[in-house]
Amino acid sequence: MTQTSQATVPVSGETYGQILDFYAGHMQALDEGSVELWASGFTEDGVFAQNVKPEPWRGRSAIEENMRRGLARLAQKNVQRRHWFGMVTTDQRDQDTVRTRYYAVVFETPVGGKASVYLSTTGEDLLVRQDGQWRVKHRLITHDAT
Amino acid sequence: MTQTSQATVPVSGETYGQILDFYAGHMQALDEGSVELWASGFTEDGVFAQNVKPEPWRGRSAIEENMRRGLARLAQKNVQRRHWFGMVTTDQRDQDTVRTRYYAVVFETPVGGKASVYLSTTGEDLLVRQDGQWRVKHRLITHDAT
Amino acid sequence: MTQTSQATVPVSGETYGQILDFYAGHMQALDEGSVELWASGFTEDGVFAQNVKPEPWRGRSAIEENMRRGLARLAQKNVQRRHWFGMVTTDQRDQDTVRTRYYAVVFETPVGGKASVYLSTTGEDLLVRQDGQWRVKHRLITHDAT
Repeated sequence: MTQTSQATVPVSGETYGQILDFYAGHMQALDEGSVELWASGFTEDGVFAQNVKPEPWRGRSAIEENMRRGLARLAQKNVQRRHWFGMVTTDQRDQDTVRTRYYAVVFETPVGGKASVYLSTTGEDLLVRQDGQWRVKHRLITHDAT
Repeated sequence: MTQTSQATVPVSGETYGQILDFYAGHMQALDEGSVELWASGFTEDGVFAQNVKPEPWRGRSAIEENMRRGLARLAQKNVQRRHWFGMVTTDQRDQDTVRTRYYAVVFETPVGGKASVYLSTTGEDLLVRQDGQWRVKHRLITHDAT
Repeated sequence: MTQTSQATVPVSGETYGQILDFYAGHMQALDEGSVELWASGFTEDGVFAQNVKPEPWRGRSAIEENMRRGLARLAQKNVQRRHWFGMVTTDQRDQDTVRTRYYAVVFETPVGGKASVYLSTTGEDLLVRQDGQWRVKHRLITHDAT
């Protein structure tokens, strides 16, 4: 059963806007290469799992370090990637805890070349609010058709 | 004249968030193959029209049945589709009635293959709120460049 | 430092919904060829800059005139374009002034043909509210990988 079932409690419009704004800034940071800023979107004990990786990345430092290495490899491809999150469903668990499920696509543009869809995924986050700021405590990204 | 004209009344932020969350869960259900859950997003007397079909589908049962057949055919293609709704304009007609106009694209990923854009459309919905839940009373999807 | 830094003040959910609804109507107008309606989304003294153009377009009349010529050229290509804005971050500067940063992709569908990604960009707007209506006072569109 997905989070679209009757048992889920959608967040308020206020929180919905906050989450979209957070996702936008979080992934803009990644696409600009601001890995530290991107990683600050995870809690200190945050976990980032992908179904195409054997092990989740555990803890903000490890998440930052692993992504930094990933971006270094990507730099050799000479492309600009853009991560879009969309179609976000929400489930308010308590005042400062929200589960989301969403789609994420990545567009890729080679320098001097043409944009295309790089990949399509679904995401499932456990978000917590800390000092007024939403952060990811657990993220699972599932690549389509894997 | 489109719904972007001066005469339209955009919904509140609260309702805007509700509609985005509804669209997300509604189409996630379809892409997961939960046809009954997807069809529950239409009213009992809902109508689903597409400019590429000779006749609209009338009533929730017919909508569910037709879509089930469509997904059965799709299953043979061995792809994952993702329906994204975005760029949603709203027009509040009364407290429980909203007209929307939006863009919808479908991304398609073959098993083991590369994601691409499958098609691009516009949508026009008449949404009604029943027992606190938004549902589609009438939907028209117009495929681009047909 | 992008607008995702700590120093920015995200808008309320109410304003976030208004901005998404405005962007949707604004770009639907363009894609329908309603250039005057699209141009009315800029202030009288609005500026539209693109990193791929030598000079910004200055003033609503010039913006409208230039875009009308652009659409006339496009008409010969016989395609339908769809501008999607997404991943919008906000920074409330004062009650009626908001800075945004966002992604924009354009999908293109040739008549009778297949949809694809035409290009991927980032946008940075200075929005002002006039008579309850958000308008663009300054827009910079930066094409990816240029």
